[in-house]
Order: sequence, then structure tokens, then C-alpha cells
Amino acid sequence: MPAKKITRQDLRDAAETYKNWGKWGPEDEIGTLNYVTPEDIIAATRLVKKGKVISLALNFDYTGPQGAKSKYPAMGRTNPIHTMLRTGTDAYAGVLDQRGIRSADDMVTMPLQCGTQWDGLGHVFYENTMWNGYDCREVTSFGAQKCGIEKTKNRMVGRGVLLDVARFKGVESLDDGYGINCADLDDCAQQQGVAVKRGDFVIVRTGMMERCQKLGNWDGYPGGDAPGFAFETLEWIKRTELAALASDTWGCEVRPNQSEDGITQPWHWITIPIMGMTMGEIFQLKELADDCADDKVYEFLFVAPALPITGAVGSPINPLAIK
Amino acid sequence: MPAKKITRQDLRDAAETYKNWGKWGPEDEIGTLNYVTPEDIIAATRLVKKGKVISLALNFDYTGPQGAKSKYPAMGRTNPIHTMLRTGTDAYAGVLDQRGIRSADDMVTMPLQCGTQWDGLGHVFYENTMWNGYDCREVTSFGAQKCGIEKTKNRMVGRGVLLDVARFKGVESLDDGYGINCADLDDCAQQQGVAVKRGDFVIVRTGMMERCQKLGNWDGYPGGDAPGFAFETLEWIKRTELAALASDTWGCEVRPNQSEDGITQPWHWITIPIMGMTMGEIFQLKELADDCADDKVYEFLFVAPALPITGAVGSPINPLAIK
Amino acid sequence: MPAKKITRQDLRDAAETYKNWGKWGPEDEIGTLNYVTPEDIIAATRLVKKGKVISLALNFDYTGPQGAKSKYPAMGRTNPIHTMLRTGTDAYAGVLDQRGIRSADDMVTMPLQCGTQWDGLGHVFYENTMWNGYDCREVTSFGAQKCGIEKTKNRMVGRGVLLDVARFKGVESLDDGYGINCADLDDCAQQQGVAVKRGDFVIVRTGMMERCQKLGNWDGYPGGDAPGFAFETLEWIKRTELAALASDTWGCEVRPNQSEDGITQPWHWITIPIMGMTMGEIFQLKELADDCADDKVYEFLFVAPALPITGAVGSPINPLAIK
Amino acid sequence: MPAKKITRQDLRDAAETYKNWGKWGPEDEIGTLNYVTPEDIIAATRLVKKGKVISLALNFDYTGPQGAKSKYPAMGRTNPIHTMLRTGTDAYAGVLDQRGIRSADDMVTMPLQCGTQWDGLGHVFYENTMWNGYDCREVTSFGAQKCGIEKTKNRMVGRGVLLDVARFKGVESLDDGYGINCADLDDCAQQQGVAVKRGDFVIVRTGMMERCQKLGNWDGYPGGDAPGFAFETLEWIKRTELAALASDTWGCEVRPNQSEDGITQPWHWITIPIMGMTMGEIFQLKELADDCADDKVYEFLFVAPALPITGAVGSPINPLAIK
Repeated sequence: MPAKKITRQDLRDAAETYKNWGKWGPEDEIGTLNYVTPEDIIAATRLVKKGKVISLALNFDYTGPQGAKSKYPAMGRTNPIHTMLRTGTDAYAGVLDQRGIRSADDMVTMPLQCGTQWDGLGHVFYENTMWNGYDCREVTSFGAQKCGIEKTKNRMVGRGVLLDVARFKGVESLDDGYGINCADLDDCAQQQGVAVKRGDFVIVRTGMMERCQKLGNWDGYPGGDAPGFAFETLEWIKRTELAALASDTWGCEVRPNQSEDGITQPWHWITIPIMGMTMGEIFQLKELADDCADDKVYEFLFVAPALPITGAVGSPINPLAIK
Repeated sequence: MPAKKITRQDLRDAAETYKNWGKWGPEDEIGTLNYVTPEDIIAATRLVKKGKVISLALNFDYTGPQGAKSKYPAMGRTNPIHTMLRTGTDAYAGVLDQRGIRSADDMVTMPLQCGTQWDGLGHVFYENTMWNGYDCREVTSFGAQKCGIEKTKNRMVGRGVLLDVARFKGVESLDDGYGINCADLDDCAQQQGVAVKRGDFVIVRTGMMERCQKLGNWDGYPGGDAPGFAFETLEWIKRTELAALASDTWGCEVRPNQSEDGITQPWHWITIPIMGMTMGEIFQLKELADDCADDKVYEFLFVAPALPITGAVGSPINPLAIK
Repeated sequence: MPAKKITRQDLRDAAETYKNWGKWGPEDEIGTLNYVTPEDIIAATRLVKKGKVISLALNFDYTGPQGAKSKYPAMGRTNPIHTMLRTGTDAYAGVLDQRGIRSADDMVTMPLQCGTQWDGLGHVFYENTMWNGYDCREVTSFGAQKCGIEKTKNRMVGRGVLLDVARFKGVESLDDGYGINCADLDDCAQQQGVAVKRGDFVIVRTGMMERCQKLGNWDGYPGGDAPGFAFETLEWIKRTELAALASDTWGCEVRPNQSEDGITQPWHWITIPIMGMTMGEIFQLKELADDCADDKVYEFLFVAPALPITGAVGSPINPLAIK
Repeated sequence: MPAKKITRQDLRDAAETYKNWGKWGPEDEIGTLNYVTPEDIIAATRLVKKGKVISLALNFDYTGPQGAKSKYPAMGRTNPIHTMLRTGTDAYAGVLDQRGIRSADDMVTMPLQCGTQWDGLGHVFYENTMWNGYDCREVTSFGAQKCGIEKTKNRMVGRGVLLDVARFKGVESLDDGYGINCADLDDCAQQQGVAVKRGDFVIVRTGMMERCQKLGNWDGYPGGDAPGFAFETLEWIKRTELAALASDTWGCEVRPNQSEDGITQPWHWITIPIMGMTMGEIFQLKELADDCADDKVYEFLFVAPALPITGAVGSPINPLAIK
């Protein structure tokens, strides 16, 4: 039975139900990241028992997911373009020697949403507003005057929890179009023996990225059909009071979306501008998931600092799970 | 009395004395980051007592230090160029509505060495070799085939130690041209009541960045005269077996360099390619230094993940000191 | 006696007086470039008597005018950033040989308005409209859906006329703030023995660029005080029915502008969106001016094709005067 | 019968036979462009009879040929990335009004070889040398110190001749792998009633681009199999003393190349560094070819100024055929 399609009235109702505007004052620009307390950070550090650091980042290069085929237009997202300003071959050729030092430098041109990344609170608007009721016109060609990613520069530290929904369901990867629901999340957590609590950084594994990597082909990954969060998980997000949510897909939300014509990504309409939730996308979770399955410990210190690019609506990151 | 000028023979001698090639096997690409053990990481997390996160990054934008006047050519380094791919003003104008979601995206073009950053082991060559004896021709226009910054993706976690040399010396900023020596570092550590040990991330404050910020002018900061490490500190680096070293200047090393004609940045010739030491530059240290002066605690959990841009010789970062 | 300040009412009046909307049909996107006829092009080619080609472009590189000091914010304009994708040093180092050919490639990142350039008709808006009455919302983050510079791809050919106003006035450079008026243009043309006629590409020399080049310093050139067209020259532009107008300054218009608070570049408000006039800026005119002064011939074949970057509001160019 | 494979000895022999080094003095950096005389330019202008301007450029945008599938690695070539620095939607939203003018600006990031372009003389090396015997180490990460494309800034004007080989052969497109030979060129010219002469800009149509455009698919175009110049046409190039040669394919030369292992693009090895011939690629020829077939006039004024990007080894262009 197909899920009921999300309508504009559903969005209005959800906006009413889940709105966190003003919760942290009228000047707030970081939303649910406020849930993390100093005590949470201290406690999270005590989860480190093995001294093992696991990166959740896909390397940033031309083999990334952008440029693959998709039903959804790329909208300007390309893979990173890394170019050299000086090289070892320059050094070898002797052309740097008049400088008195042989060194290499480099440069990158990259859409900030092209790989493993945070979507900041300036990334999605609800009608003419953004998080906390700011006018969407605060995000101009000069960048985000409100809710720029740089506002989170000392915030991305806390307890991380992996919910390995694919493994919980007994599959290598959830199917495209599968909408992860609240019961999935609750049951997965219970089976894993971990409780999600206020201020957590929750990371949900669908297995989709690994499926693409196994195929050696990203077609459909960026903007195509995908497993992901069903609209109803807004309730779960509100209930758990998590700090941020991330996944191993292009956009966290299930695709195709269960919404009526003219509405795309309905879950995004609410999570970012209405709830103030920062979202992590394109996380690489294989190593972490294997480690957690092995030691049965699904909680860890999570540190994923955004690059504080002033006025940015997102940031490429190298998120670390430290166990 | 001016210091004796470093000669090519001094460089050859230093290369002999300080060479770590092979120490971690012939395949190693990360050098002194190997000093950090799992036990060090666990211990570092236990330093977190206040649950306070301090970012050591300068925001990345057009107000950064590149483009300021300098005696040294910019060599292609510019401030970051942040551009928008979609905006809130597009949303307001209604032009995004055919997509069914109002969202913003963005992009950055930036030299990887333009702001707060790691210099990776592909950044400097000693004659025709790089770290561990790799041929400098491993760093081509396609990037670093050896020692790319992505090799450090799960390595930048450990104990951080701040050595606030400016405060120790009783000045707001060390003078340009002042060469920090081994005694300065030892005495500063002793006065601060902290001992540097193997596997530490050592961060040295000269006060220079704050001096520029107070003046509202970066002239001379990039590549100009600066306080920084004297050549003799190679001995201190070797002795302490630190994992990485960072400072609040453009290039860590004292400038002008005390070297004979034809040799620039002699300390770099040895630290990076010969010792295999990753170096942090343009760290913003005011908040951390004030906090440490206040609570007298100069050690902390340090997490500064590089963006794993494949083949990069450096990476912009948002380093975190967690106390 | 200072000129009367241009008010909003003056702009409304000028918009009424000079409006060319609809003149070339409701679908037109190129404005006064329509004045050029095939006969004009044929006639222009017959002006070529010496077989001499003079480039009016400043080279595009880091020595360009952007980045210099200015009263006016740079608004994202930087000098071009040219980077190499493969090099001769790679070739020398032997790292290209597995490809079977030794070659170099390169790349540029450049604001389209950073050097010698055309301002297209999507560059300036009058309130909420652009040329021919199109809605300004046709120019989004995805580019100009109307009046993109690519619409001019086969249009930039015709008779060029140099009006060397600086030489006519007997100065090396007009003073900053000097507003060139209709009489100046008429008298200069008369003295030069050349008549401006419908469909001409008119190039006006102020000498300002050469003044900066002689000083070796661009400070004030981008967005600072400058000689240039007075508001009254709108009448001259209308009367002559020229195809396009160019100058050797950053923005053609006199600066400071003679306008009341809240109005900047009043001449631009009318020329581009109301008259549909394409504008050339940062033209390098020394060689052409010297040649014309020498042979007393101020007319020539002018060819200055825009790069047809789809949706661009301007284009870097290499304009040629062929005599 | 397959053509004999080009060997290294063949390349050495060809280098001997076709070498133009020194022909225009030891300081020359533009090679065969020197063949164009002022008289040629004057004569070329007299070919303009209709006053018709035909652009030979493909628009520069994300629909371009880069990114398509290919047997050949892209080597960093992407389609142009056009981004806006200010927009009409910003204007509409009112956020520009504090500036006193509503305007849009934009920016491009593009490999210089990604679309319609000149390959300059710094683009290909023969062993360790480039055109005129310059050391290949003149092309470093800082660009081409010799033979940069800016050296041609006033040179790309002359007589253009279209050789429509596809039409001559009675096909819509030559087959991939078809090597155009000297007889094809001579016979085509003869049938068209046009004689190629010293200093001409010769443009050869294979029909390949139109074939891709008709399919709506660039797969194979960049770096794949293609019709193009056979190695033997070096003789024709030498004999005709043409100024520059262009085609509607990715690389002018037939692919697969008829060369032994380890040699790719043997014709390029000779044309650029040995003969000093500038090469045009990815020219869009349909409109010109149709016009020539219609009026039987295959000669015209050709103007295709390179953007003088200092030190560039190529340039995107908008070449114009003026008839």
C-alpha cells in the first residue's frame, strides 16, 4: 500500500507541529546543535576506549558521485577540481630554485555539497523564511548573512550514535524508495542496545553508498531514487532531540518522495528551516559499521568540524568517529 | 650578534642528523603522525574537563591574509572565493518553485594554503626527494601520488599542548625576525607546568596574528618578516617526538630566515621532507590562549581532521581544542 | 559650479525619453547592436588599408586592475586565476610519457568583468526590469535566461571609431571626476575629421588606464574616481544611434557620479536596461590612439566577439581594431 | 589494408623534414601565424560581400562535450562552470539597493581546452622541446613563459577557407577512424573551386560534431575515435604554408592514431612543436558549411582573437567567419 502523499496542508501542519523557532532565542543561528551541553561533550569523550579513529569521509576527487547519471538535474554540483599551483615536477625541472625552496601548492574548486558534507541552516527555506524565522533574503549572492556554516565552527562535537538500519533489516542495502520509519529507528536502536538521547549526532546507515561502490558506478546516487527517512520521522527527530542527523545517501530523505505534485523533498522543508536541524550527507559508513558490528558498541565520540567559510550554506567535512 | 647563516652544508648536516626516513617502514606516507598511539588518543580524551570547544580557525573569506602586501610573491595564493549556485533571493523571486523545494547551494575556489591549514608531507622537497625518500616527481599536476593529505584522514586526533611563547615572554606579540629557540620552548613549557611528550600536537603562539587583527591590516603577514621557529628547534622537534607542530603565523619559521643566498625557509627543508612533520599554519589562537591563561591548563584534546582531497599537499582545516 | 545632482525623477524622465524597448520587437535581446547592417559590415571592411591589427585587450593575469585599492567594494571581482592541468615540467620529469604524448593544459577562474570586457544587457536592471522590459528575475543564479551574452555571438563586427578625448583636450589623461559631455564628443569627432554614424562601435579614450600603467599602480582604478561619460551623453548616444560604446576606464561613467543619495551609476541605469546598449570597459587604447594620431585615421574595422558563455551577463574579450 | 604504424623513427624523420625552427628568428613564439602578411589581411577583408557574420563557436556551458564517455581520460577537462556573483533575483529581493544600482555580475571556471579553442604553441612538446627549440621547462605551473597564447593577441585575422570534406565525400559525417589525406584536401579544394594559399586559416569539416548533436550525445567525442587528419597531411600543411588549421572534432587528428605502442597523437608531435602551427578544435561548422554550399563561396574573412591570458597554452574563442 503506497504511503499517503504529502500535501501542502500536511506541510503547514508539520510546520506548526515541529517548529523550534525562538526556542533558543530570536538571535539563534544554529538550531538543534544547541542541544549539546558541555556535560554531553565530556561524557562523549569518555566513550573512547580503543583509541581508534574512523573517518566517515569519502575522499574528495573526480571519482566522487557528482556527474553520475540522475533523474534530478545536477544544479551546478560537480566533483571537486583539484589543481596544482606548484609541483614536484617543477622542483625536478629546477624552475623553483630561484626561490630557494622547492615546494608544491594547490587549489580546489568545489561545490560545498559535492561530497561528505554538512547542510547548514541556510540551505533550505520554508516559503520565504529560513531557520528561526529569518527572511530567506538573508541568503543572497554574497552568501548567508544569517545561519552561515561558520556559526557552527565550535559546535560539531558530541556523542555519536550509529543506527545501522541496513544490518538491522538483514540486508546489504535498503531498497531505493524504502522510507525508514520511526519504528525502524526505535527497533534498530533497541536491537543494538543503544538509546538515542538529547544532543546526539545520529548517523543512519542504509548501505546505499556501499552498493554503488561495489558496482563501481554512482548512477542514480545523486538525486535518484534512494532509501531514506520517511516524512513521519520528523516525530522521531523531535522526540529524540538529536543535535544533527546524517546518512550515507545523497540527501538523507527517501526518494522518490511521497509528496503531491509541486512538492519535492518535503522532509527537508521541515527539518532544516522549521526544526533547525543540521544534516550530514554522503557519509561513508562501511568501516564504522563493521567496527560497531564487531564490538557491539554503537556509540562514540563524534567530531566533524565544518570549514568556517563565511556565509556558506554547507561545508565539506571529514567527520570522525572516535571509539 | 646576528645568528650564523645557514649554509648548504648545514642543510646537508641537518638532513643527516634529523632524517626519519624508513623509521615507519618504506611505505610510510604520514611521518611523525605515527607517534600518536591509541593510548595517547584515549588519554587525550580524558583531558576534557569543561566540555568547551575552541575553534582555532580563521574564517575563510575575502578578509583573509592573502592579497595583503608582502615582500614575498603570492605564488598564486588568493583568499577563498565563495560563490552561490542558488540563493534565498532566487527563492524569494519564485524562480526555484518549479523544483518543488526552495534551497540554496554554494561553491568555493580556494588555494589549500590560503588560511588555517595543514601543510602535508607533499608540500616541501629536499632536492629531488620528498618524505621517506620518495621521488619529488610523485607530485605532478595531477597531485601527490605519495603523501597526499588524504593519507592523514584518520590521524589528526591526540593531545594538544599550547606553548604561549608571547605571554611567557611578557609581550603581546613577539617581534618580527625573532627566532624562537629551544630554550624558549622548554622554559615556556616549564613555566606553564606542562611537559611536551611523544605524539603531541604542539601549538605555539607568537601573537603575530592578533597584532595584525588589532591593526586591521594583514600587510606583511603572508610571506613577510615574522617571528617563528629558529633553525635550532629541529633539535627540539626531534627530542620531543611531537606528532605535528602549528603556529599563528603564515609559515611557522622565523623570517627573515637566517640563511645564505639561495636558501629560503631552511627549517622547512628539514621538517617536512626529512623529518616527516606535518605543519599547521595560520592558526587563530587568541581564544585558546586566553582560556589557558585563565585556567592554567595548557593541554587538551586536539582534533583537526584534514579534508581528504585526493593528492592534495595541504588542507584547509577547522582545528578544535576541546578542554 | 557643480553639476545638478541626478534625482530619481531625472531617472524616470530619462527612462521615458531614451527607452528603446520594443524598437526591435518584443523578443529582442541585443538592443542597439541591431543598428549594425550587413552594408555597415561590408563598408567597415573596406576601411582596412594597412593590414594592421591592434588588440585593445589588457592581458588577463594577476597584474590586472582587480585587487587594487578602491572606495568601492570589489563585489567578488578578482584578477583571473590561471592554473595548469599539465605542464612542460611534468613532461620533463617524464610523468606524462605513459600517455604517449607530452602536452600541457590549463584552466582559468575569472570574474567575467575583471578585465577588458563587454557588459551584456543582463548586467544592469532598471527597478525590476531589464532590457526590452524583461523581468529582472530572468537573471538568476543559473544565469541570464534573457539577454545572455551568447545572444551577441555573431554581432560584434562593424565600423569602429576612436574618439581620443584626452588628446583632443591636450592632456595625457582627463582628470578623475571629469564628466565628458556631448560637446566634447562632437568637437573631438569634428577635430579628428570623423563623423559618428548609426551602427558604429564608438571607443572613447580618457587616458586613465595609461596614467595607472605609468604609475605602476591600479589603486583607485576599479570603482574609484574616474573621468567618464556625463549623464547628458545619453542624448548623444540616442542621437548617434551607435551600436556599442567602450572606454579605457573601469566603468565608462564619470565617478563620482553626479547623483543624489541612493543612486549610483545613473548613466548605467539608462544605457543598459533602457536603451539596450552594450558597453565595453577596461579597453587598452594606447597603441590604437598612437596609431590614429599618427595616420589621422580614426575609423577602422572593429571585431570583438564575446565568448558565448550561456547565460553570462558579460564576457572577457580581445577586441581588435583592424586598420 | 591498415596504414603502416607510425614509429619513433618516423617521428624523428618527420621532425627533420618539417622543422620550422628558426625560420622566423630565434625569438619567435607564434610560428606559422607569421605567414599572414598585411596584404593578406587587406585582401581577406575584400572577401566580405554579404556582410554576414557566422560564429563558429559552440556555446560554453554544461551541455558541452566534456564529461561525456570516452576511452581517453578527461585529464582534468570539465565543461565550463558559470556562476553568478550578483543576480536579478538579488535585485528583485531588494538586497542590492543599498548600493544604489541593481546589477548582476558573474564568473567562470573553465579548462581552456574545454570547448571551441585554440591550442597554442605551448600545448605540445617534442621530447624536451617546444616550438622553435625552447626548453619544455618554459611551461611550468606558473604558465608558459614562452609561446603563451597572449603572444598571438593581434594575429588571428586573415583569409579563412572552409574545406568541407564530409560534403565533398557525399556523407553527413566522415567515419570515426577515417584519416583525411592530402588527396582529400586537394580534391575537395579543387571541387569547391578554392585554392589554399600561404597564410590561410584552413577549416576542415568532418561532420562529426553535427553527428553528435543530432544524437544529442557527446559520448566518444572527447578523446574517442574520430575522423581527422592523417599523419601524411604534414606534407600538405608544409606545402600550403597555412597560418592555422581547425576542425570540428575534439583534436583534429584521426583517432585511433596509426601509431605504434607508446605514441599517441603523432601528428600533434610534429604540427605544434616542430612546425609551430596553431590548431583550432571543437569548431561548430554547420552554419558556415551550409552557407558555403549555398553560395559556393568557400573563402571569407576570418577573425578569431584568443583571450590573451598570460602564459596560457590555449584559449577558448568565438571564431568568426565574415562573408
